[in-house]
Amino acid sequence: MRVVDIIRKKRDAERLTREEIGQVVAGAVDGSIADYQLSALLMAIVLRGMDEQETAWLTDAMARSGSRLDLSSVPGPKVDKHSTGGVGDKASLVLAPLAAACGLVVPMMSGRGLGHTGGTLDKLESIPGFSVHLDEAKLLLGLRQVGCVVMGQTDALAPADRKLYALRDVTATVESIPLITASIMSKKIAEGIEGLVLDVKVGRGAFMKTIDSARDLARMMVAAGNQSGVRTEALLTSMDAPLGCAVGNALEVVECVETLEGRGPRDLEDLSVLLAAHMLVVGGVATDVPAAVRRVRHALSSGAGLEKLREMVAFQGGDVGAIDDPARLPVGPRYEPVAATRSGFVRAVDAESVGRATMLLGAGRDTAGAPIDHAVGAVVLRKPGDRVAAGDELARIYYRSEGRLSPARRLVAEAFVVGDDAPAAEPLVLEVIGGD
Amino acid sequence: MRVVDIIRKKRDAERLTREEIGQVVAGAVDGSIADYQLSALLMAIVLRGMDEQETAWLTDAMARSGSRLDLSSVPGPKVDKHSTGGVGDKASLVLAPLAAACGLVVPMMSGRGLGHTGGTLDKLESIPGFSVHLDEAKLLLGLRQVGCVVMGQTDALAPADRKLYALRDVTATVESIPLITASIMSKKIAEGIEGLVLDVKVGRGAFMKTIDSARDLARMMVAAGNQSGVRTEALLTSMDAPLGCAVGNALEVVECVETLEGRGPRDLEDLSVLLAAHMLVVGGVATDVPAAVRRVRHALSSGAGLEKLREMVAFQGGDVGAIDDPARLPVGPRYEPVAATRSGFVRAVDAESVGRATMLLGAGRDTAGAPIDHAVGAVVLRKPGDRVAAGDELARIYYRSEGRLSPARRLVAEAFVVGDDAPAAEPLVLEVIGGD
Repeated sequence: MRVVDIIRKKRDAERLTREEIGQVVAGAVDGSIADYQLSALLMAIVLRGMDEQETAWLTDAMARSGSRLDLSSVPGPKVDKHSTGGVGDKASLVLAPLAAACGLVVPMMSGRGLGHTGGTLDKLESIPGFSVHLDEAKLLLGLRQVGCVVMGQTDALAPADRKLYALRDVTATVESIPLITASIMSKKIAEGIEGLVLDVKVGRGAFMKTIDSARDLARMMVAAGNQSGVRTEALLTSMDAPLGCAVGNALEVVECVETLEGRGPRDLEDLSVLLAAHMLVVGGVATDVPAAVRRVRHALSSGAGLEKLREMVAFQGGDVGAIDDPARLPVGPRYEPVAATRSGFVRAVDAESVGRATMLLGAGRDTAGAPIDHAVGAVVLRKPGDRVAAGDELARIYYRSEGRLSPARRLVAEAFVVGDDAPAAEPLVLEVIGGD
Repeated sequence: MRVVDIIRKKRDAERLTREEIGQVVAGAVDGSIADYQLSALLMAIVLRGMDEQETAWLTDAMARSGSRLDLSSVPGPKVDKHSTGGVGDKASLVLAPLAAACGLVVPMMSGRGLGHTGGTLDKLESIPGFSVHLDEAKLLLGLRQVGCVVMGQTDALAPADRKLYALRDVTATVESIPLITASIMSKKIAEGIEGLVLDVKVGRGAFMKTIDSARDLARMMVAAGNQSGVRTEALLTSMDAPLGCAVGNALEVVECVETLEGRGPRDLEDLSVLLAAHMLVVGGVATDVPAAVRRVRHALSSGAGLEKLREMVAFQGGDVGAIDDPARLPVGPRYEPVAATRSGFVRAVDAESVGRATMLLGAGRDTAGAPIDHAVGAVVLRKPGDRVAAGDELARIYYRSEGRLSPARRLVAEAFVVGDDAPAAEPLVLEVIGGD
C-alpha cells in the first residue's frame, strides 16, 4: 500500500491493519518512508487514536525492529519494572535489589531525566565510578553474578522507537496514549524479559493528570505486553506529592540506601515493596501478592536487598564505600531551609513545583543530552498530613549557585499548602490493571 | 514562538495568531522549518480546522510569500475567474474572451488536469503552436493588446503554495477547506487582480460532493479574497453531469469555438455568460448582473467574443486557422458510438465516470507532469432530460488504441442512467456567495 494511503486511512479514523503498521515501522527504520510522511501519520494517530489491537501491533513491530536480547543463558525468571515518571520516584533503585534478592533476574534498562521528572540513570551516576554503559556480555555476566543491573538502553534495541521519538519530540506528537504505549513497551519487550510491572503515575506531578487517562494508558500497555508474550501488570499510583522526601540525584541515592536499611520514608518503602512483590508474581516466583510481599519484606529486613545494591554498584564500577557511607556522595554544597509561614496541617506538596524547583537548581534538564548537577536538589521534610507550627522547617534546598536558589526556593515554598485540617489520607495504589 | 509550540496549539484546536501563521509561511519558504514539522502542522489543520480569519491570514501570508504581479501599467479593471474543477468544464475558454470583449482585463493563470478533471492549459495546448508559457513582459503586452491571456502560473508567485502543496500531496493533507482556500486564493491574489469570480463545483463529478462543503469552501474563499483587497464572488454550480458535451482537450476547444459562434450547448453558454457577467460586476464595469448579462450576450451574438479568442490564440503563438476550421485540431483518430440499450429519458450522466473514462483513454493524467493525448475523449450527445430510443447514440468515444477503448467504453455506458420519467430540471447555479 502507498504510504500516503495509509496516512489517509488514519486521517479518516480508520483502523490500520497489522501489515500497514508493519510497513510503516519498517520504512521508518530503513529510511524508505520520508520523515514528513511519518510525522503526518503521527499527528493523525495523536488526533484519531489507535485501538488496543492496533497499538499492540505497533508495539510488536517496533519491538522487532532491532535485535531482541537473548537472556536464555541466564537461569531464573527475567522481570523488569517501568515507571511513567514522577518526582522523587527512586523506587527502581530500591526494588531492583529486593527483587534480585528474592530470586528474580532484573535486566533493568532505564532512562534519563527530562523536564521536571528525574531519571534512574542520572541518579546512579551520582555514585562515583558507576557506569550505566554495559555491553551485552557484561549485562549477561551481571545478571548471572548479581541478579540485577541498571543500564541505559543499547542502540540495537527497538531502533524504530528512537527514530519515531526524535520526530515526535519536535512535532508535538508525544502526547498520545497509543504512541506512548508503543514507545515504552517496544523497548521493554526487546529486553527479552518474561514479566513486567508498570508503575503508572497519576496526578499533578505526573504525565497523566487524571485517573481515566492513566487507566487507558495502563490497559493499552498491559494488552501490548501480554500480546507480545510478556506477562504484564500495571499499578496506578498517586503522584500528587513527591515520592519519599528526596528530590535530586545524589540525595535520592542516599534515601534509597536508607530505605534498604529499613529507615526510609514509609511511602517509598511501601511502594517499592509492593512493586517488587508484583514482580515476583508476574515472574512466577510467588503465587499471590500477599505471599510475595512477605518475601520482599524479609529481603528488606534481613539486609539482603542492601547487600544486592552493594553488589550491583560494585559490579558496575561504582564506589561501594559511598553506599556504606553516603557522606561520600556529592550533596549540596550548601543548603537553605524553607520554613512554614503558619501553623496547621500540610495539605499538599505539589510534586510538579518541587520537580521544577530542582530542575532550576540544576538537578534536571530541559533538553535531552544537557548536563546536570548531581549534588543539588531538595528534601521534603514534611509530607501531606503532617502537623506543622509556623517557623518549622518544611523542606531543605541543596544548591550550588545563589542565582539559582531564589526562584527554586519560591517554587518549593509555593508547593506547600498548609491548612487547618489534615487532608484525607490518599491510598498509595489507586488501581491494579492486569492482575489475576 | 517555537514551531513545535505552534503545532501543539493547532493540535489542541486552538486558534493561531496572524504572527504564528506568518512565521510558518516564512519558514516554509526559506526552509528554516523542517518538512516534518510542516506536515505535522498540515495534518493538525486538516483535522482541527482553521476559522475564516485564520484562513484569510494564511492566504494573505502565502500570497505575499513571493512577488505580486504589478498590472497597474495596463488600463482597465483586472478580473480573473477560477473553477474548482469539473468534467468538461471549459467555461474559462469561453468567458475570458467574452469578458475581455466587454472591457475587462483578464490575466488568467490556469492549471493542468489531474485525476478525472481536466485543465485549461492542456486544452489550449491542443491548438497547434499555442504557448502557455509567457514571461511578465509578454503577459503585460497581451493584456494591453488583446485584453486576455491564459497562461501557467509563474514560479515567482506564491512560492509558499508550491512548497506546501508538494507536501500535502504526499501526506494526505490535500482535503481541507482552509488549506484549499489558501492554496487557490493566494495564487489568485498574487496575480495582482482587483476582482475574482469563483465557480465552486458541487456534485458527483466535483471535489466537493455536497452543497454544505461547497458553501463552506466558497465562503472561506470569498472572505479571504475580500480581506486581501480582491473583490470576490462565488457561484455554486452543479457538477453531476459533464458541463457541455465534449470531454477531452481538442474536443473541448472545438466546443468552445462553437459556443462563441452561438451554437454551443445551452448549459455551457449560459454558465459562461453568467460567470463573465459576474466578472463585469466585480470589476465595476456593470452595476448589476442582469445588465452585465445583456452586455456579455451582445459580445457573444456580435462575434466580438470569438474575435477575442482569435486574437488571444494569435498572440500566444497558436494556429488561428484551427479556430476558423476546427477540423485542423487533432481529434480521434477513431471513434466508437455508445448506444442506448432501452428507451426512456436520460436521468443522469455521471460526470466522474465520464471523466475517468477520458482519463483512461489518455486525455488526463494520474500523476502531475505525465503526458496526455490531446486528441482523445468523449462527446456526450444526450444530456439529462433528453428522450432516447433504444439504439440511439448516447455518446461518442474518440480513441487512439483499441486496448484503452474497452474499459473507457464501459465507464461511459455506465455513466448513463435511462429511466421512464424525465428527471426534475436542475438549476445551473445553486447559490451565489458574496454578491450584493
